[in-house]
Amino acid sequence: MKATGTVKKILANYEGETPGVKGKLCQMLMHGKLGGTGKMIILPVDQGFEHGPARSFSVNPDAYDPHYHYKLAIDAGLSAYAAPLGPLEAGADTFAGQIPTILKVNSANSLMSDTAGKNQAVTASVDDALRLGCAAIGFTIYPGSDMALDMFEEIVEMRKEAAAKGVATVIWSYPRGEAVTKEGETAVDVGAYAAHMAALLGAHVIKIKLSTDHVMQPEAQKAFEAGKIDISTQTARVAECVRSSFNGRRIIVFSGGASKGTDAVYDDARAIRDGGGNGSIIGRNSFQRSREDAMEMLGKLIEIYKGKA
Amino acid sequence: MKATGTVKKILANYEGETPGVKGKLCQMLMHGKLGGTGKMIILPVDQGFEHGPARSFSVNPDAYDPHYHYKLAIDAGLSAYAAPLGPLEAGADTFAGQIPTILKVNSANSLMSDTAGKNQAVTASVDDALRLGCAAIGFTIYPGSDMALDMFEEIVEMRKEAAAKGVATVIWSYPRGEAVTKEGETAVDVGAYAAHMAALLGAHVIKIKLSTDHVMQPEAQKAFEAGKIDISTQTARVAECVRSSFNGRRIIVFSGGASKGTDAVYDDARAIRDGGGNGSIIGRNSFQRSREDAMEMLGKLIEIYKGKA
Amino acid sequence: MKATGTVKKILANYEGETPGVKGKLCQMLMHGKLGGTGKMIILPVDQGFEHGPARSFSVNPDAYDPHYHYKLAIDAGLSAYAAPLGPLEAGADTFAGQIPTILKVNSANSLMSDTAGKNQAVTASVDDALRLGCAAIGFTIYPGSDMALDMFEEIVEMRKEAAAKGVATVIWSYPRGEAVTKEGETAVDVGAYAAHMAALLGAHVIKIKLSTDHVMQPEAQKAFEAGKIDISTQTARVAECVRSSFNGRRIIVFSGGASKGTDAVYDDARAIRDGGGNGSIIGRNSFQRSREDAMEMLGKLIEIYKGKA
Amino acid sequence: MKATGTVKKILANYEGETPGVKGKLCQMLMHGKLGGTGKMIILPVDQGFEHGPARSFSVNPDAYDPHYHYKLAIDAGLSAYAAPLGPLEAGADTFAGQIPTILKVNSANSLMSDTAGKNQAVTASVDDALRLGCAAIGFTIYPGSDMALDMFEEIVEMRKEAAAKGVATVIWSYPRGEAVTKEGETAVDVGAYAAHMAALLGAHVIKIKLSTDHVMQPEAQKAFEAGKIDISTQTARVAECVRSSFNGRRIIVFSGGASKGTDAVYDDARAIRDGGGNGSIIGRNSFQRSREDAMEMLGKLIEIYKGKA
Amino acid sequence: MKATGTVKKILANYEGETPGVKGKLCQMLMHGKLGGTGKMIILPVDQGFEHGPARSFSVNPDAYDPHYHYKLAIDAGLSAYAAPLGPLEAGADTFAGQIPTILKVNSANSLMSDTAGKNQAVTASVDDALRLGCAAIGFTIYPGSDMALDMFEEIVEMRKEAAAKGVATVIWSYPRGEAVTKEGETAVDVGAYAAHMAALLGAHVIKIKLSTDHVMQPEAQKAFEAGKIDISTQTARVAECVRSSFNGRRIIVFSGGASKGTDAVYDDARAIRDGGGNGSIIGRNSFQRSREDAMEMLGKLIEIYKGKA
Repeated sequence: MKATGTVKKILANYEGETPGVKGKLCQMLMHGKLGGTGKMIILPVDQGFEHGPARSFSVNPDAYDPHYHYKLAIDAGLSAYAAPLGPLEAGADTFAGQIPTILKVNSANSLMSDTAGKNQAVTASVDDALRLGCAAIGFTIYPGSDMALDMFEEIVEMRKEAAAKGVATVIWSYPRGEAVTKEGETAVDVGAYAAHMAALLGAHVIKIKLSTDHVMQPEAQKAFEAGKIDISTQTARVAECVRSSFNGRRIIVFSGGASKGTDAVYDDARAIRDGGGNGSIIGRNSFQRSREDAMEMLGKLIEIYKGKA
Repeated sequence: MKATGTVKKILANYEGETPGVKGKLCQMLMHGKLGGTGKMIILPVDQGFEHGPARSFSVNPDAYDPHYHYKLAIDAGLSAYAAPLGPLEAGADTFAGQIPTILKVNSANSLMSDTAGKNQAVTASVDDALRLGCAAIGFTIYPGSDMALDMFEEIVEMRKEAAAKGVATVIWSYPRGEAVTKEGETAVDVGAYAAHMAALLGAHVIKIKLSTDHVMQPEAQKAFEAGKIDISTQTARVAECVRSSFNGRRIIVFSGGASKGTDAVYDDARAIRDGGGNGSIIGRNSFQRSREDAMEMLGKLIEIYKGKA
Repeated sequence: MKATGTVKKILANYEGETPGVKGKLCQMLMHGKLGGTGKMIILPVDQGFEHGPARSFSVNPDAYDPHYHYKLAIDAGLSAYAAPLGPLEAGADTFAGQIPTILKVNSANSLMSDTAGKNQAVTASVDDALRLGCAAIGFTIYPGSDMALDMFEEIVEMRKEAAAKGVATVIWSYPRGEAVTKEGETAVDVGAYAAHMAALLGAHVIKIKLSTDHVMQPEAQKAFEAGKIDISTQTARVAECVRSSFNGRRIIVFSGGASKGTDAVYDDARAIRDGGGNGSIIGRNSFQRSREDAMEMLGKLIEIYKGKA
Repeated sequence: MKATGTVKKILANYEGETPGVKGKLCQMLMHGKLGGTGKMIILPVDQGFEHGPARSFSVNPDAYDPHYHYKLAIDAGLSAYAAPLGPLEAGADTFAGQIPTILKVNSANSLMSDTAGKNQAVTASVDDALRLGCAAIGFTIYPGSDMALDMFEEIVEMRKEAAAKGVATVIWSYPRGEAVTKEGETAVDVGAYAAHMAALLGAHVIKIKLSTDHVMQPEAQKAFEAGKIDISTQTARVAECVRSSFNGRRIIVFSGGASKGTDAVYDDARAIRDGGGNGSIIGRNSFQRSREDAMEMLGKLIEIYKGKA
Repeated sequence: MKATGTVKKILANYEGETPGVKGKLCQMLMHGKLGGTGKMIILPVDQGFEHGPARSFSVNPDAYDPHYHYKLAIDAGLSAYAAPLGPLEAGADTFAGQIPTILKVNSANSLMSDTAGKNQAVTASVDDALRLGCAAIGFTIYPGSDMALDMFEEIVEMRKEAAAKGVATVIWSYPRGEAVTKEGETAVDVGAYAAHMAALLGAHVIKIKLSTDHVMQPEAQKAFEAGKIDISTQTARVAECVRSSFNGRRIIVFSGGASKGTDAVYDDARAIRDGGGNGSIIGRNSFQRSREDAMEMLGKLIEIYKGKA
């Protein structure tokens, strides 16, 4: 598909990157109902790994079936679908070539003791991504965890291999662990820092959580004040995270967190849009609703990102 | 052998998988007295590694001989025989080609201190499986153990190699370790989670234990209630585990646990059958009986899975 | 893009293939103005290598510029653009992700003596295709050449690597060399044989020339008569080549040969369509016309393949 | 399936071979209507490569479709189906696991000049055989060709790799080339020599042509006379070829050659049976008949090999 | 050094190339007295390999010393210095970092029989180029030679490795061999074809000879006439070669051939400049003069390329 000017401008930021990676980013940016707008909505379904199937799917039992998610993402006109190896394979024939896919190559689970550390297992490879025709690999890092340095070293190696083979890299950057307070996990200074670290590690697409106006690090508080950086609104905080992503030179999407009311989801999206973010990665808030409700909500989100709602 | 419609339907779920893996699954599903029904009974004999020979075999001393198990599985018309490297080799010439075999590629033992962690050693390779003509490799993971992430990374690599070379993967998913209470090891939320993780990791056949109606994670309890998921009967709990195995898109078999009365074994099988499970993997309950009793019990189980008992 | 039923039916013929390859075939079949119809028009520009720049481009000097061809393929709504390494790289940033590309990985040239044999040099790799984000590699074989066995061995290795990494393979099968007469190069028996060999070697897309009603091999003449195979019309001959491509289980496209009048080009396309072929691969007949004329001709061809002209 | 005594006795001849290879031989010997008898009928379809599609399939156009052959082999209850990469893949999903397959890993074609030598291209690999779940690889050698030494070196390497990975090797041993007269190609001394060379190279299954009572080498004539070796009947000549296959320690099957009347085919089979051969590999004589006729003929052949006709 | 707009425009043509390669091209284009103009003069000293030391250096014995050439290139303000491994190493410490160097990685010599073919030996590696800090590797191909396909395959592999490691590739494309007449070696159609092949193979910088108005291939003659391509002047012929280098998207430099009078050298340079070429690669015409004369001549050439003479 002929790329729009908006998309070409985004791609031009990926200087020196392989044409294969740029082509994959173009594929995601031109796909679905937001194709060409520079905005994206991604459906991620890795909660089954992290929270178990009951907590993830029992509220909407159709969602136990991996085909459900492929269909939801395709029918809603989303930009991409992200999942671990197993579920991607479970629809690999039926949906081959119909939506860009992101192979989540590391995975956490909630059957772990605290002493096991905040870490994830590498559960798929770049070769798997190639075999399955994925547009990107997805990798979670936990800035703040004592395991973070190991995770950084893992993703740096995988990204190098992926980029050489024309596969893009999405980094889920989720502050967590020994060096981060519970409130700090969504503090704006920490969130912007998390986005920045992902960019520094070479992410092509950055995924972080929306943040609160809490500031965890006192030095950051002082810096915000010195620089007169506004963090009072969600829009302003999104803007700070976008700035921290190389001043907007990297695509950044925001996760919606636990399921909540649609109005809150819409407000989040407007803040992401107005703050200069590139879109939403929205899992539980879509598949923990009935398909009918999810389709309606995703349709509305698309309107919001198009500036029509 | 010409595959039945039931078997073809099961194989169609393994989208994007190599024809070699599908052929091996077909071989197991078409073999023995349950051939073509979509149900399986597998004889696993790795208890010698885990519990030592005395606890495993002295109650039925013929079972010290590896040939005993090959013969039992063949004569009873079972679907496959699973064992570590040594016993498979011990009958490799005599029984070559007569029953699908599953090479157990990692192994636990009970001569370990607690501080050694809940882990297993990798004791065989995919190349061994090829050399021995095995239909599958078998690998145990311990969700809940602090070693779980390492085990995940091991099986993901072995499965990738095995699948490329046309060998299927069976994952024994046994919750155990620091993050799981004793009662939680057989809790229904944990069991379904264990099945789900095996599926996420790419298992072609999932093996878990039957579960109790205990729910270990409070959040899961809430989820079951919210989704009105019935867990009151063994059949209902099997159904939840089947759902958690990609809504039945992956073969799932259940282990019988420690030896017990035949009536209990039959009841288990009926619950597995009625809950939509694919069959039993039944070790101690078969070889810790006399051959005569075991043959009779296995014959009855086959009748149950055929819906005739 | 949601694949049409027609495209899904074609993809289902690629049994046992990696999802990556199926996705790439889907991408080409869903792209451009023929997207979803099961028909394709591919623009190949490797004549500069084979005939030199003057003979290829001087009649339409704009075509000396590699960007010209990218633009022509995109603006005309073609299915894919095929070229050697150099020209693909020359537009790799500007056109990244905008049209499926086929990297021609071997190349002939006309500055070779007869004793050098009928052969091509391998001038690019699967890794190049990945780096450049190509949908497929393209490889020429010369059935009838004394170098043919070597060429077969080369493509078999490259195809294996490509398929494992999710890249499709297009084989240009052009009879030529010591065992083929000049008239035989386009004989119908030889053309169908060339298509069949490409299929046997594992081609996902087969490219051959349209054939005449000449039959080179006397035994083939007898066989056509014995089987009452009609070869009297171009449509009938296309049908025989489609049958020889695993009875239509492989995509087959036909080349138009040297530049000629548009009416002849349209007649060829109608014969390809009516004989069950999947489309045209049309180089000199498009870029050796002015852009305006080429756009008009390609538009008409698209109408023909849609059954509207 | 429980191997019969006859089959176990055959397997015992493969001393020191990997259990994987023995299992694959057992699989072929226990499969289909001749399962357990020690006799085999194999359907080979590589004539499309060697003679082109018209000469191979136009007499029975249904045979252009690769599925036709899979179905014929399965429905007739044959022991195995042999074909090159392309056609095996074309039915890899539909027929996975339903009949043992033999991947023909080298291929000849008739679009070659005489000066190109009598040779074949290696067109598939052991890795392909594993991925496709094949029971064996098939390789043609041309004793008598100036390329024979190269072919021997190729198969020795491939066989070594295949056996280590549990895949059996079938050698098509067809005298041809500079050192063999036209009449000598089917001379009994040459045929027995060809069988012996295949055995010497490590073939698990040997495929040769039936021979005439012509003796090409004068020294062989003298030797037959000195040893009072009877070569006057087809049965006697089969017996000489069986003796030359390590005195019957290697499975040997005979090809029927060009299509001919069914009575001649039946006579051949009786001679093979009575001379101690293991069966037929029968291509053109099966698929160049209508399916109905082929099914009838194959049914009769099975009766003959069972000693009932 | 800040790149000029002219240089940035040239670099932008290297789409999808690694930043390392672009940086090396920038380094050459910004170095010396022509830095920033988009023009280059390169000093190549590989004649010692090809013609022996006596024919190369005895006319100016100072030139036996490798330091002589380094100094000449540096002192004259040239853009780069190209030589085989030995001479580059001989000044590697003294001149490290002072001028961009091009490691000639294959080499011909004149102590070869005709039957040895028109070929060169690979005499250095990409690793050598990295170790020596070279800006580029240089490789000669002989279009028209029966060895050309082998040479193409060599350079394609080396270029892939070099580009991945941030080293540029200069291809010397010299028509020679069985398919080219003596007069054809410098024919304009053949020269443009040679430039085009270098571009197709992925050259970053193309080096060819200036051509005569002879046209070797009759079809090319027709094409020039049909396209009204002027080849009557040296400037027009340079323009045709520039067009054949992807319409000027690749840097192309011209060699001066055997030593000759300075006026002829200046005329050549003006034709290169006016035809749109990027400069000269001038060996024998510089070092086979006294240093004084060479310095003067090179100074004049720089003036010509600056448009001042």
